[in-house]
Amino acid sequence: MLPSALNDVIDALGRLPGVGSRTAERYAYFLLKSDSTISQNIADALQNLHTGVKTCPKTFAIMDASDEVSPIYDDPTRDKSLVLVVEEPLDIYAIERTKSFTGTYHVLGGAISPMDGITADKLHIKELIDRVEEDSVNEVIIATNPSVEGESTAVLLEKLLHEKYPELKITRLARGLPLGVSLEYADQITLTSALNNRTNL
Amino acid sequence: MLPSALNDVIDALGRLPGVGSRTAERYAYFLLKSDSTISQNIADALQNLHTGVKTCPKTFAIMDASDEVSPIYDDPTRDKSLVLVVEEPLDIYAIERTKSFTGTYHVLGGAISPMDGITADKLHIKELIDRVEEDSVNEVIIATNPSVEGESTAVLLEKLLHEKYPELKITRLARGLPLGVSLEYADQITLTSALNNRTNL
Repeated sequence: MLPSALNDVIDALGRLPGVGSRTAERYAYFLLKSDSTISQNIADALQNLHTGVKTCPKTFAIMDASDEVSPIYDDPTRDKSLVLVVEEPLDIYAIERTKSFTGTYHVLGGAISPMDGITADKLHIKELIDRVEEDSVNEVIIATNPSVEGESTAVLLEKLLHEKYPELKITRLARGLPLGVSLEYADQITLTSALNNRTNL
Repeated sequence: MLPSALNDVIDALGRLPGVGSRTAERYAYFLLKSDSTISQNIADALQNLHTGVKTCPKTFAIMDASDEVSPIYDDPTRDKSLVLVVEEPLDIYAIERTKSFTGTYHVLGGAISPMDGITADKLHIKELIDRVEEDSVNEVIIATNPSVEGESTAVLLEKLLHEKYPELKITRLARGLPLGVSLEYADQITLTSALNNRTNL
């Protein structure tokens, strides 16, 4: 019923996560009403996305295709002996925004989830174990997500790293009350952690 | 901080209505992780959007660029003497989905809104007035939105059409209770209309 060029845009945008046909229609009609440079900008940016972004062969972070290794890993002011392990590349930017971390990163590429076919050998665990030796790493901070998958991955990583390097310091992000959440609404596990890991005033 | 190709996609998608930087990031990262054919499909569809869609010179509906006039207007089974007037092209498809209308459409291209610079001369009102004569129209159904702008537009249209064609039947969509809304929650204006326009059982 709709012009086929408009239908094609609705179908294509409907592939985006969380975008149903109504939202896709709204986007498509907005683009049709707007100047064609907006559609053209999106089209150009999308065409360059996969060719312009590469995975760092060392840390598995994402980087410009023109880079040899991730700029953070390449930065001489960053401490290579301190490695923070995350599940996904975008997790790096969440940590970077805190401006509180001066080490380097290692991206696992997910968390163990046998139901989704993600087993330990699909993650960049071997490369992390190799890196500990190559970069004389003193401390590995495990920053997987606080989900069942993230926890299992953390437990496995700790086991594998400890087996190979009994002296290596292995830590994980603290659990506690996040800013703005009242005690009343905090879950039991978080509250138990906050109590056990209480700090001196 | 992010690879520039990824940043470009986030910026470009952030121009879509209701898409903030977080949502744009989510879309962009999904596309980066997915096969590049998905990005390519969206890019191709967007590139063809403005060239593939044209406005019908008669009804101002949108149509394939290869069409001379809108397929609905061109359809010999559609009654050209009955014209339903809508604000926007997509309103046509809402009416078409009801499968209850056999006439043709006329798109105004908006509703009068002096605050947004949309005055009567920016709408396709003159073309509607001409069409009444050209197509020997018997009835014009005004289906502008039930907003302040839509109401003012309806009042103006009625006045202009009546001035020129005193015999023309001018109607508007009925006001009443929508399906699934209890009396308790209906607004006063809707309820007043529903009462005044009550139908025989």
